[in-house]
Amino acid sequence: MSSIKKSRKKIVVIGGGTGVFTTLTSLRPYFNNLTAIVTMADDGGSTGILRENFGILPPGDIRRALIALSGSNNEMLSKLFSYRFKQGIGLTGHSFGNLLITALERITKDFEKAINEAGKILSIEGKVIPITLGDTRLIAELGNGQIIKGENNIDIPKHEGNIKIKKVWLEPKAKINSNAKKAILSADVVIIGPGDLYTSIIPNILVGGTKQALKKTKAKIIYFSNIMTKFGETNNFQASDFIKTIISYLGKGVLDYAIVNNKKPSFKKRAVYIKKNSDFVEPDFNLEKINKDISIIKTDLLRPGKFIRHDSNKLGRLIKMLV
Amino acid sequence: MSSIKKSRKKIVVIGGGTGVFTTLTSLRPYFNNLTAIVTMADDGGSTGILRENFGILPPGDIRRALIALSGSNNEMLSKLFSYRFKQGIGLTGHSFGNLLITALERITKDFEKAINEAGKILSIEGKVIPITLGDTRLIAELGNGQIIKGENNIDIPKHEGNIKIKKVWLEPKAKINSNAKKAILSADVVIIGPGDLYTSIIPNILVGGTKQALKKTKAKIIYFSNIMTKFGETNNFQASDFIKTIISYLGKGVLDYAIVNNKKPSFKKRAVYIKKNSDFVEPDFNLEKINKDISIIKTDLLRPGKFIRHDSNKLGRLIKMLV
Repeated sequence: MSSIKKSRKKIVVIGGGTGVFTTLTSLRPYFNNLTAIVTMADDGGSTGILRENFGILPPGDIRRALIALSGSNNEMLSKLFSYRFKQGIGLTGHSFGNLLITALERITKDFEKAINEAGKILSIEGKVIPITLGDTRLIAELGNGQIIKGENNIDIPKHEGNIKIKKVWLEPKAKINSNAKKAILSADVVIIGPGDLYTSIIPNILVGGTKQALKKTKAKIIYFSNIMTKFGETNNFQASDFIKTIISYLGKGVLDYAIVNNKKPSFKKRAVYIKKNSDFVEPDFNLEKINKDISIIKTDLLRPGKFIRHDSNKLGRLIKMLV
Repeated sequence: MSSIKKSRKKIVVIGGGTGVFTTLTSLRPYFNNLTAIVTMADDGGSTGILRENFGILPPGDIRRALIALSGSNNEMLSKLFSYRFKQGIGLTGHSFGNLLITALERITKDFEKAINEAGKILSIEGKVIPITLGDTRLIAELGNGQIIKGENNIDIPKHEGNIKIKKVWLEPKAKINSNAKKAILSADVVIIGPGDLYTSIIPNILVGGTKQALKKTKAKIIYFSNIMTKFGETNNFQASDFIKTIISYLGKGVLDYAIVNNKKPSFKKRAVYIKKNSDFVEPDFNLEKINKDISIIKTDLLRPGKFIRHDSNKLGRLIKMLV
């Protein structure tokens, strides 16, 4: 890949979870000016414990983005950042990278400085920016009026997972980090997703000022829909449902492209997912009816192999072509 | 200091605790081929918990030596390695550097590889080698026959601290790490100490093969006596007691030099220490009677300031002169 001449266009990726990792990994062979803007809504697992114990902003999504951008000679450091303790009283389950970001935050007394220092250690190529520096929680209201507090409780539902999410919001309200705003405004391309719709993608849009920045920027804005539905979040969602939901939070006239996978994985591959109440996101007929201003691109984004994932080569090549 | 032409002589420092840190820091401006061989007897604090929970070798002394040798542009990384969590269930009290070495050991499944990887992260100039790769504990027998198990119980005495230590040994027996042996055999100079006599220095000599390697090597061997006594270990010890004890474990004819501080700190400075049952190590008259083969050097090694410490500039210049 090193022989490809990389584009110097400014690419901003917005998201969270493993989606950000996939997208950044896809883009690295083609672009050399990458910025990841990540959600600050995570409150589960190692991240949740560190938020509670240290009162810091959530390190988990930051960590994943840092690893995706880490220098190519840093295989051991990437492994170290990804390492999760499997033993030790109070250590079990903690991600080493989360502990590192936490320690740096204590030393620098500044979350963004801590991210920059962690980035230096990993020799990252690019930038990682939290969408907000506000300490906020994600709240959901279900179709039956039930209120679910906390990202982790929505992500790993204890409620009846078949009930649709009516709306999500942040408590307290949070405003956009000025560095995130600057990155969006000066971007050539903004890529939103893929990722868990309500828990990784929309929390970024809920932050005060994100919508405005996305409206104001001259960047092309691309949304990647998911390949598979997620129980408790997007049951039975078709591709048009993903896009319509994003537009309902983003407002009309913001998205330029929505990209949809149209290659259905075999039933054999899907069987494991179906057992977990997750299934293929159909590139449905309603897609045509969505906002006429949006170009819907349907293409095969599936990675070969046992697991149903986005193929980072296909993703990267597609974006390179669009940009 | 960068204008000084550094000596390329091979210097090996043997010890543990803060003593190794002091000696390595002293030597760095003058020598560019430094190796630290550190004790594996520590079983207290963060290190003790990690030994118990992970069954790994003790990372604490390794960490201190790594920090002392860390690259000059790595101020933040040194801070990070030294950082100790002050919050967090199960995290409080843990040194971040210890967690890093532990995680690397889990990833590489090899303690020495983990040290090398940690050394790469810190861009260390030199080498850090554990004296043994055997999992062993330090045991002491007191003058009254009482047996004390574990380095930490000797170091922070729960026993009557005025009773002298009769002897110390390792259980189970441990043999020297082949890399430590090689380093000693190929060294030009070996420096032992300063450091806690029974808990940081002698545990290295107790490892099977250390004495033999120190006898066999053509290196000059220098022992640094302590400035202050330590309650429960070296109460009322004079300089000659330190040297005689070392010789009793090392055998005769091994040491070339013993270096003794002869500058007594003011009573005002000592008062804080005296409250903790620690006092000045006198450069006593018995020094002359010790083995005639050893050159005893008495000199001012005291650092100006509130705390009674070795002055790293004085230490460094002295060794440079002797070598």
